Amino acid sequence: MLTLDKLYQAAFSLKGVARYTDLIKAPRMFPEHDVYLKTENLQLTGSFKLRGAYNKIARLSEEEKKKGVIACSAGNHSQGVALSATKAGIDAVICMPEGAPISKVEATKSYGAEVILVPGVYDDAYKRACEIAEETGRTMIHPFNDDDVIAGQGTIGLEILNQLPEVDTVVVPIGGGGLISGIAFAIKNLKPTCRVIGVQAAGAPSMVNAIRKDRIETLQDVATIADGIAVKTPGDRTFEYCKKYVDDIVTVTDDEIASAILSLMEKQKLVAEGAGVVPVAAAMHGKIDLEGRTVCCLVSGGNIDVTILSRVITRGLVMQGRQVDIEIEVFDRPRQLALVSQLVAEMGGNVVTVEHDRRNDGIDLKHCLLRLGLETRDQEHIDSIVKAIRDSGWRCVVR
Amino acid sequence: MLTLDKLYQAAFSLKGVARYTDLIKAPRMFPEHDVYLKTENLQLTGSFKLRGAYNKIARLSEEEKKKGVIACSAGNHSQGVALSATKAGIDAVICMPEGAPISKVEATKSYGAEVILVPGVYDDAYKRACEIAEETGRTMIHPFNDDDVIAGQGTIGLEILNQLPEVDTVVVPIGGGGLISGIAFAIKNLKPTCRVIGVQAAGAPSMVNAIRKDRIETLQDVATIADGIAVKTPGDRTFEYCKKYVDDIVTVTDDEIASAILSLMEKQKLVAEGAGVVPVAAAMHGKIDLEGRTVCCLVSGGNIDVTILSRVITRGLVMQGRQVDIEIEVFDRPRQLALVSQLVAEMGGNVVTVEHDRRNDGIDLKHCLLRLGLETRDQEHIDSIVKAIRDSGWRCVVR
Repeated sequence: MLTLDKLYQAAFSLKGVARYTDLIKAPRMFPEHDVYLKTENLQLTGSFKLRGAYNKIARLSEEEKKKGVIACSAGNHSQGVALSATKAGIDAVICMPEGAPISKVEATKSYGAEVILVPGVYDDAYKRACEIAEETGRTMIHPFNDDDVIAGQGTIGLEILNQLPEVDTVVVPIGGGGLISGIAFAIKNLKPTCRVIGVQAAGAPSMVNAIRKDRIETLQDVATIADGIAVKTPGDRTFEYCKKYVDDIVTVTDDEIASAILSLMEKQKLVAEGAGVVPVAAAMHGKIDLEGRTVCCLVSGGNIDVTILSRVITRGLVMQGRQVDIEIEVFDRPRQLALVSQLVAEMGGNVVTVEHDRRNDGIDLKHCLLRLGLETRDQEHIDSIVKAIRDSGWRCVVR
Repeated sequence: MLTLDKLYQAAFSLKGVARYTDLIKAPRMFPEHDVYLKTENLQLTGSFKLRGAYNKIARLSEEEKKKGVIACSAGNHSQGVALSATKAGIDAVICMPEGAPISKVEATKSYGAEVILVPGVYDDAYKRACEIAEETGRTMIHPFNDDDVIAGQGTIGLEILNQLPEVDTVVVPIGGGGLISGIAFAIKNLKPTCRVIGVQAAGAPSMVNAIRKDRIETLQDVATIADGIAVKTPGDRTFEYCKKYVDDIVTVTDDEIASAILSLMEKQKLVAEGAGVVPVAAAMHGKIDLEGRTVCCLVSGGNIDVTILSRVITRGLVMQGRQVDIEIEVFDRPRQLALVSQLVAEMGGNVVTVEHDRRNDGIDLKHCLLRLGLETRDQEHIDSIVKAIRDSGWRCVVR
């Protein structure tokens, strides 16, 4: 059973190990409301996972410490366990699925753990980790369904209440449920009037379903860019804590998540991963009541692959009307490109890609299609460019 | 004349106005050394400029406050002045060159200032601002060459010494020199043994030149992605402070700046602008002595356009071997693309763009060029893919 004592002990253990991360107001993102960000993306290892993993390891017996630990994860938990073990001076083995992003594998190694790449998917790696635990006597560090891990994550709740005593709504991502279990336990025991709201990805609503049906089921598939919370089966412990302490759970779509990632970067200068921004996405997109409230959104992690980040930015730019592809039907003869380019330039558009297509079925033989990729200011700007092109006698569509 | 009194008064004025920004260790970026980041990119308005602007405005007479203020800037200073004036309850007009990024214009307006877009470049906007100051009696807020502004920026030095008393090297960007003047004054008066090192962009070395020649000259051109420090003429006040208090000034290239932006995002989860990362770039690229030192790099701002950020990421990915374009000479007949694609897939490369070229001069009529854009793991991975393609009998080059 979780107790406040265990949370305070965890907080003491974590002194000098985990960062007491900053709480930052977000007036650019939420000019009308009091919304704060608890920046666990700036935690060591780039996510909150260090807290639970270290607290678990700190509580092992000397005998257990000697035998070392093992964990399985393709993401933040692996880095949390690796650094925790190194800080505690014990040995760690991490099983990761072979397809895990190389940046996460490298990060885990850099924190001092031995990494075993297991062919197959997460479940295969998990199975192998269990076998190794069995064979070697290493303690398995579960990512969420463990009271010592949950107590470690709960220290975030203590910090939020300390940093923002007037908080009345705390919004937390849910994957397996360990993070919100610890935080909700802290909040509800110290300030019961404060609401605790969980957020899941619409493509991985395992805890939402469990609460609604009042039993744990395993999702067939999970599909979301928030891979850190793409969990098929909630824990039984975390399920009970959520039932008892969490006021509500809402979901957000991948597009909402992507736009939250972009806004956090542009307006708050913070890099966050999909799983880490679901509370911000929920607050941005009307899923949480902000009116007259003092809201703290946990930004739980920042370990996003820059390749993904780059795609999120591109998608966000297109959504905001700052990048666009247009297609213009021109006569297939000299000077057409020059004329169109000239016009676009006069309108303040910046051409970044050009493509000529003579093979398109939909147009007659004397015409060809000119595809331009443009950098623009906003939707209005796009409209004015398209209008100018049409006014000059060309057919033009936005792709 | 600057005094410590003025800095402490500034610090008091800024309480509840500017954020006391976090100081974060950067073990992922600098595993072998003690390097810390002072995160002024997380300051309100996204840069340190708020500090100096607000301190200046707070010290105006009641008479002056009634008449309001005016400033000229295409960047962070405009936002700093706008928010400062709003917080102080006085009126602000900001002249910006017409071509200023729309995001900065919008941000400045959102902080409550009236924005006047002046046709032409910065110098035109500055001239117009001077005229308006003359006509209306508004006080001009200079971005750097003013003791009250410098004292405001100097509060960062006080905070660094408070947060990291053992610091022995502080690294600071230099544009006009206001920021480093204030910080160096604080450091050298309180801890004279601590080194203060300035960093300029190699494409805008105005203060470096001034110190070397011992006189202020105006650069003909400045060219750098660090637009926030692309200053042609240092201030005369800041020049004197730099001569007296700054130990050394080094420069960094645009590529070094871009790679620092990417590393800060990936490893520290912080978005920073070009001008804001030059100290980190200097530390990363061997321009600063880190051995056995306790180093604090100021990350002075985070207001980078996401379009630029997206390009920086792409460039960084190419430099790290995580994106590549390859050209393969294939027979111009069916199944060639299928065969090559198959091979690339087997090698773990992810094809993101495909282009066929039959018009290339360098090859004979029976061949055509296939250009593939690939996502790869690293340079070694690229080499192995190229080798596999060559071993299968195709000519292949990396573009």
